[in-house]
Amino acid sequence: MEERILKDGKVKNGSILKVDSFLNQQMDIGLFEEMASEFWRLFGECNVTKILTIEASGIGIACLVGQKFKCPVVFAKKNRTKNMSGDAFTAKVESFTHGQLYEIMVSKDYLHSSDRVLIIDDFLANGAALTGLISLVRDAGAFIVGAGIAIEKAFQPGGDAIRKQGIRVESLARIKSMSEDGRIEFC
Amino acid sequence: MEERILKDGKVKNGSILKVDSFLNQQMDIGLFEEMASEFWRLFGECNVTKILTIEASGIGIACLVGQKFKCPVVFAKKNRTKNMSGDAFTAKVESFTHGQLYEIMVSKDYLHSSDRVLIIDDFLANGAALTGLISLVRDAGAFIVGAGIAIEKAFQPGGDAIRKQGIRVESLARIKSMSEDGRIEFC
Repeated sequence: MEERILKDGKVKNGSILKVDSFLNQQMDIGLFEEMASEFWRLFGECNVTKILTIEASGIGIACLVGQKFKCPVVFAKKNRTKNMSGDAFTAKVESFTHGQLYEIMVSKDYLHSSDRVLIIDDFLANGAALTGLISLVRDAGAFIVGAGIAIEKAFQPGGDAIRKQGIRVESLARIKSMSEDGRIEFC
Repeated sequence: MEERILKDGKVKNGSILKVDSFLNQQMDIGLFEEMASEFWRLFGECNVTKILTIEASGIGIACLVGQKFKCPVVFAKKNRTKNMSGDAFTAKVESFTHGQLYEIMVSKDYLHSSDRVLIIDDFLANGAALTGLISLVRDAGAFIVGAGIAIEKAFQPGGDAIRKQGIRVESLARIKSMSEDGRIEFC
């Protein structure tokens, strides 16, 4: 993952990392398979019963992970739609990328107190989305096995704050710093 | 797919088919693998270079299809975000489910005139989303190999209208009618 970020990632304004050529608009499925294998190495012994992610760019990675773990994949939706009915677990999330507050939700039909949940997402920076997903799992009374992240911006506080809660967070690439001229340093 | 719809699909108000227990909120990856195999059987000889889908619920299926075809998967985004830059192909889409007009877009970096594109989506009803995706591919000057759809509501006009344009549309399940009492008939 680190190699691929150095090869194809682009830094914008010193704080935004663009990886949409392989991760979150165009998706390199061979790379996703390798990521899924690594998450399986890390969490394969944890009796995971469900993969949870959030639309949209987490879904592709999560599906390849679900294939490895042979369990269902559930994604949290960002807005209630006409097709969603019945009760749902919800949480408020403040997006760093979009600069707005939105609600995420998962139908109560798809998270149960007996579930052992592995959360998968593409990015971890301020931890807003991950905190929202953790809150959904807790509302369901399910067990959080941990979180598998493709890229963590370790210079932002999300990862450490969530680890301090005792949640296992495994990131395939941890970025220590990014500079205006596009240089990227890993932890 | 037809068996699974009869087993787990639910009809609401005679016109909405809820399949979010296996297709578009909770995702059954084993089923997605079978669907991908069927799309490979149908389009495997067509020299596909790119899979195109639309966020959010098309992404999971498209990723498993991309794994089979060993080519990149690109998803159209529904709104321009801060992270998207540069030029993009765009189209307007009127959503049947959400009752609203939105713009879809794909960066020009990920669709080229040399591409042979297989479009994948979960639903085909009025054909709004698929028409938008076709327009993006045409704007790129790429070749449309065809469209692979999980569920087509054949009693709505989208599929026939698009086939009349000479585009090959293959749907894994084609619903002829749905009734208020939840009965589903296939073509």
